[in-house]
Amino acid sequence: MIGRLPTRRNVLTARKRIRSRVHHTPLLTSHSLNELAGVEILFKAEGLQRSGSFKFRGALNAVLSLPAAERRRGVVTHSSGNHGGALACVASMLGVPATVVVPRGGSAFKRASVERYGGRIVHCGATLAAREKKLAEVQRATGAAYVPPYDHNAVIAGQGTAMLEIVDDTNADEVWVPVGGGGLASGCVLAAPAELQVVGAEPALAADARLSLETGVRQPPMPPRTVADGLRTALGERNFSILAAYGLPIRCVSEREITAAQQLAMSCLKVLVESSSAVPLAALMKYGVQNPDTRRVVVVLTGANLQV
Amino acid sequence: MIGRLPTRRNVLTARKRIRSRVHHTPLLTSHSLNELAGVEILFKAEGLQRSGSFKFRGALNAVLSLPAAERRRGVVTHSSGNHGGALACVASMLGVPATVVVPRGGSAFKRASVERYGGRIVHCGATLAAREKKLAEVQRATGAAYVPPYDHNAVIAGQGTAMLEIVDDTNADEVWVPVGGGGLASGCVLAAPAELQVVGAEPALAADARLSLETGVRQPPMPPRTVADGLRTALGERNFSILAAYGLPIRCVSEREITAAQQLAMSCLKVLVESSSAVPLAALMKYGVQNPDTRRVVVVLTGANLQV
Repeated sequence: MIGRLPTRRNVLTARKRIRSRVHHTPLLTSHSLNELAGVEILFKAEGLQRSGSFKFRGALNAVLSLPAAERRRGVVTHSSGNHGGALACVASMLGVPATVVVPRGGSAFKRASVERYGGRIVHCGATLAAREKKLAEVQRATGAAYVPPYDHNAVIAGQGTAMLEIVDDTNADEVWVPVGGGGLASGCVLAAPAELQVVGAEPALAADARLSLETGVRQPPMPPRTVADGLRTALGERNFSILAAYGLPIRCVSEREITAAQQLAMSCLKVLVESSSAVPLAALMKYGVQNPDTRRVVVVLTGANLQV
Repeated sequence: MIGRLPTRRNVLTARKRIRSRVHHTPLLTSHSLNELAGVEILFKAEGLQRSGSFKFRGALNAVLSLPAAERRRGVVTHSSGNHGGALACVASMLGVPATVVVPRGGSAFKRASVERYGGRIVHCGATLAAREKKLAEVQRATGAAYVPPYDHNAVIAGQGTAMLEIVDDTNADEVWVPVGGGGLASGCVLAAPAELQVVGAEPALAADARLSLETGVRQPPMPPRTVADGLRTALGERNFSILAAYGLPIRCVSEREITAAQQLAMSCLKVLVESSSAVPLAALMKYGVQNPDTRRVVVVLTGANLQV
């Protein structure tokens, strides 16, 4: 039972709510990449977003949607990836405490970004049960509100504001996005005008979203083997419903294709590109545009938090 | 005998000439970096310029300044660094041939960027004499015009257009730039309004410009040991005259400081930053602002052509 799903109207409201505090990120271009891909590509540089990823949009919208009294007690989440850093960044900006529950043995680099924004790290075991127990403990002890990474209406609506900026800035035929939990993809399909095709991309080693949409049954996550660590998670329940209703096409790519696209993007665009962010470019290079009439594609580069 | 030096008027003319073909690059900011530096810093992201560095401005202005008949015969230069890539990019855009003379054993990565834009590579020996002989050979054989990397009026005026954009976009008190041959620094001091202080930065291992300005005598290059390979060259003759007339202050930093600033800039700003480009940030972090009343500093990130 997931209740009401968010709509385009929620994305428009989210934009009003977060507008003064997010970066309207630029669209980057590369003549060399256009030639290689055989189509004009504009790259939505969400790595230049605050906290280094699009996750800031959803986290900010979710926290600003909390009643003031609840917000003051702080926020908690369990993502050790970009959502954790984004939530810590939002909390620090709004002057409220943030706690991020991370499995022991996770990435020290991602933990450091939470701590850089003054977030508190709490460790838990590697299982789902251990994580939920620890999350509940923190909530009981602090009264903090849980802000989930993707399966949450305000988070989905916040991510969709990236699509509104794309539509304001250019006249594209297709927008390609990576699919992990499906927060960005859901927000984008809600916000996209009817004539604009959204296309998803996944690592073949984490193709649960494609399988979910093909079978009509939400699939569990695959073993966490892909280099695109932001996309290892399973599709969320709300996200599944929204993407199934849209009929999102999803293209899959190999690990080698992801790494090659990541290096290509960085050397041509001169910005840091996480491996998860390179997945849609890899898919576009491999399969070409979705519709033969497409002249201009936007590829969302979702994050730039990688160790240099 | 260097003849007439360029003026601010030449920079304004250069802007008109190149405006439709250069990127007006953005100013990037990082809250974390501002806190660390104790001052508001805006980073002029010239790594997002065409060909990946500010060198495109000067090369384009120089080539567009050639009479049409001369331009058609092509262009030649001897830089194996960013100037070579920029000139090849300009030539490809204007449909004229470009040749770049590079010493045998130089960086394969930098050569590849020349070739990516369709430029022809011609090898020479490592000495100045060998390089000049080969350059003259190419000119005799092809009639190509020589476009020097920095000691050239149209090149200096072109580089100065970066300063005009800075002044259009923000109200800064100081602008910090790296000093190698001095093309960018010269263009910037010509273009800067009187109330704006330009500050130079050099690796301590390539501090020939500071020594030149201190002694009043242009110094030869130091042995090419610094990691900031774009700054190994000696100050040009015109550049020396312009910077001496301005009285450019130059701050020097160690290799360790350069590398630390490079990593800090990349991880906070999410763009690729060459080691040469990190030198002014390193110097600003080390010495602080030039004038105690300074509230806002622009640091020019000159290039993003590094292997990823």
